[in-house]
Amino acid sequence: MSSLQPGLGAAHASSRAAILDLIRAAGTISRVELTRATGFTAATISTVVRRLIDDGLVVEAGRAESTGGKPRMLLELEPYARFAVGVHLDHAGITYVIANLGGAIVARWRRPGAGSDDPREVVARIAAEIRATVARVGVDPQRVLGLGVVSPGPISPRTGMTLTPPVMQAWTEFPLAAALEDATGLPVLLDNDATAAAIGEYWSGGITASAFAALYMGTGIGSGIIVDGTVFRGASSNAGEIGHICVDLDGPECWCGSAGCIEALAGPVAVVAAAREAGIELPGRGASEDFATIARAAARGEEAPLRVLRRSARYVGVAAQTLANVLDLELVVLTGPSFAIAGSLYVPEVEARLAQSFFARGNHTVRVAISSNAPEAAAVGGAALVLQSELTPRQAGMRMSVDRALEMPSGV
Amino acid sequence: MSSLQPGLGAAHASSRAAILDLIRAAGTISRVELTRATGFTAATISTVVRRLIDDGLVVEAGRAESTGGKPRMLLELEPYARFAVGVHLDHAGITYVIANLGGAIVARWRRPGAGSDDPREVVARIAAEIRATVARVGVDPQRVLGLGVVSPGPISPRTGMTLTPPVMQAWTEFPLAAALEDATGLPVLLDNDATAAAIGEYWSGGITASAFAALYMGTGIGSGIIVDGTVFRGASSNAGEIGHICVDLDGPECWCGSAGCIEALAGPVAVVAAAREAGIELPGRGASEDFATIARAAARGEEAPLRVLRRSARYVGVAAQTLANVLDLELVVLTGPSFAIAGSLYVPEVEARLAQSFFARGNHTVRVAISSNAPEAAAVGGAALVLQSELTPRQAGMRMSVDRALEMPSGV
Repeated sequence: MSSLQPGLGAAHASSRAAILDLIRAAGTISRVELTRATGFTAATISTVVRRLIDDGLVVEAGRAESTGGKPRMLLELEPYARFAVGVHLDHAGITYVIANLGGAIVARWRRPGAGSDDPREVVARIAAEIRATVARVGVDPQRVLGLGVVSPGPISPRTGMTLTPPVMQAWTEFPLAAALEDATGLPVLLDNDATAAAIGEYWSGGITASAFAALYMGTGIGSGIIVDGTVFRGASSNAGEIGHICVDLDGPECWCGSAGCIEALAGPVAVVAAAREAGIELPGRGASEDFATIARAAARGEEAPLRVLRRSARYVGVAAQTLANVLDLELVVLTGPSFAIAGSLYVPEVEARLAQSFFARGNHTVRVAISSNAPEAAAVGGAALVLQSELTPRQAGMRMSVDRALEMPSGV
Repeated sequence: MSSLQPGLGAAHASSRAAILDLIRAAGTISRVELTRATGFTAATISTVVRRLIDDGLVVEAGRAESTGGKPRMLLELEPYARFAVGVHLDHAGITYVIANLGGAIVARWRRPGAGSDDPREVVARIAAEIRATVARVGVDPQRVLGLGVVSPGPISPRTGMTLTPPVMQAWTEFPLAAALEDATGLPVLLDNDATAAAIGEYWSGGITASAFAALYMGTGIGSGIIVDGTVFRGASSNAGEIGHICVDLDGPECWCGSAGCIEALAGPVAVVAAAREAGIELPGRGASEDFATIARAAARGEEAPLRVLRRSARYVGVAAQTLANVLDLELVVLTGPSFAIAGSLYVPEVEARLAQSFFARGNHTVRVAISSNAPEAAAVGGAALVLQSELTPRQAGMRMSVDRALEMPSGV
């Protein structure tokens, strides 16, 4: 299928993706306008558009109002022509979304997490879930482009996670992409939660900043970076690991092997521990739920929970400042399940820190926003990863993983 | 002149720059090989090469050994066809270099710094210096492409520095680029010391890392970032400001308005203050000289100076780790005058920290090296900035500054 299909020339795939993305972004657009916007010849546009129509990805949507001369035929995306599945794999829960080519979410659901189960069992469970739901919502399996799987970083395209939080030790070096490709028959793109969330944020639109980061807080803290519409990945696709920078040389030990990490000082696990120490009563059903309890109490104005969260917010402010200074950002978006719950308590602290301490504040400000997709940002990002690879290959997921997908048969 | 010349189409300038850069990188290369390497048509290569030869930038260097058929004419760069001037403007000293198109330094000299002099006087002094030395070393002024001026960040392309260390207050918002263009008649590119040093490092060759940072320590601390051969600039060309991230929420106040900054804890000024507190006797002729005195004593094995520098090195290690985590780096190069003096004391600490705390260490290591250009890295970078804009426009200095240069008459 299109750019994931073996045998398609790179240049053709790239012009096809660029034209498809222009049509998506424009809503409706004529061939003449495409010629102008791309710089391709009219003949190239005509050939590529013909092929996109034949493949069902684009439809002719009637003629524009005449401005004299023959009115132009308008083209638009057929959003239901293709679908992508996004999976957010975490120990506490697995979140799924199915998105169509237009980026609309047509299904979203959540199942129990990986827990301490054998990774092979979890992979079989994921494959069965996807098969069942694709059938239930009536999506033609032939139209599913691929699967974007999102997990805590750091990851490697071959083996999946190379370093895992203690609860997911069994996944270290597990060949996640290959196992899921075997189990689902779908090409698999792999990325970490924060990077996927940034892609999802960009994809869902409205981002005008030339440089922005999604600051992601689930049970851990990470970030995804997009500059000039392109994901910033670094040498091994693990850029943005802001949760494990050191902000206190004498700080507490972190599961990552370092000490004084932002995650160890300000992440939900640290917040829960600090709350317990302050005598706050918690249900004790895991960090996510306990964190939510603290956030609700703080929102009601209770002093002790507020103090605990404000301390976390100060460190998150430092994380935002560090990202802004290193990357010269214009926008920081707070996202992920923990900011979905407590984001409004963090925003004022992060804003204040950036206003006071962002180094290039003489040049421009750094805006702070909460994502409207915060609770399922990672799964939405997984689907966006696949759509992105279809529409704009150079912004796609981890390169090696895409290459791998290209070598695979594309049948579903 | 070439890409700095007004009226040249962007596409032509870009293919010309790409071909010129290929010839430079190859040493010698034939037209057929250029066709293969670029994907341009033989006709385009022929036209562009003819123009490069006419302009004196490229010469025919004899025929390759025959492999049957007519031996191919080899092309090579004429390094003395063009020159670039690099100026590193600092309060303690102004360093100048003249580099030729091949990147060789044909002159380097140093003069007293800006001190507290009126910026207009300093600009006049710089223009006179350049004029005199260009004449003295026998460079044809018509062959000087431009001037790359490097100063402490953050900077803005229009006004120069937007936030300055206390000693250079008079330069805040001074229209540096415009004043120097008026005074020298040369197009001026502006950048901060650390970014320029990174470009110079990349330019001087041998960098194979896909993502690297130059960690620069002069009197302040900063960094320049290059990924896949392209400078990472961020939204306003102030990316890499690692000296002003917070690593201690309760740390000392910094001149930048924040507190607990790496520069305030580990920069030469902080090192000198800590040494004084530890009772180490210092000449007291400015931070740079005092820092050098401490470094020499530490190199002789004296305990107190060693302790003071090790503490600084721990924080520099944190800076390197932060850069590596956020950017997923493969290489950190220590450069600038302070690392030129004390770098070998810092390397083991930085290496140890990265080996232990770089988050994606399961994927790859991060190498640490000292620049061979460390003392004059910023000035060399200033010249590289200009050469880079001639050879590979998309990697050039600050965009707005280049645009500005394009609007200027190109006469020297």
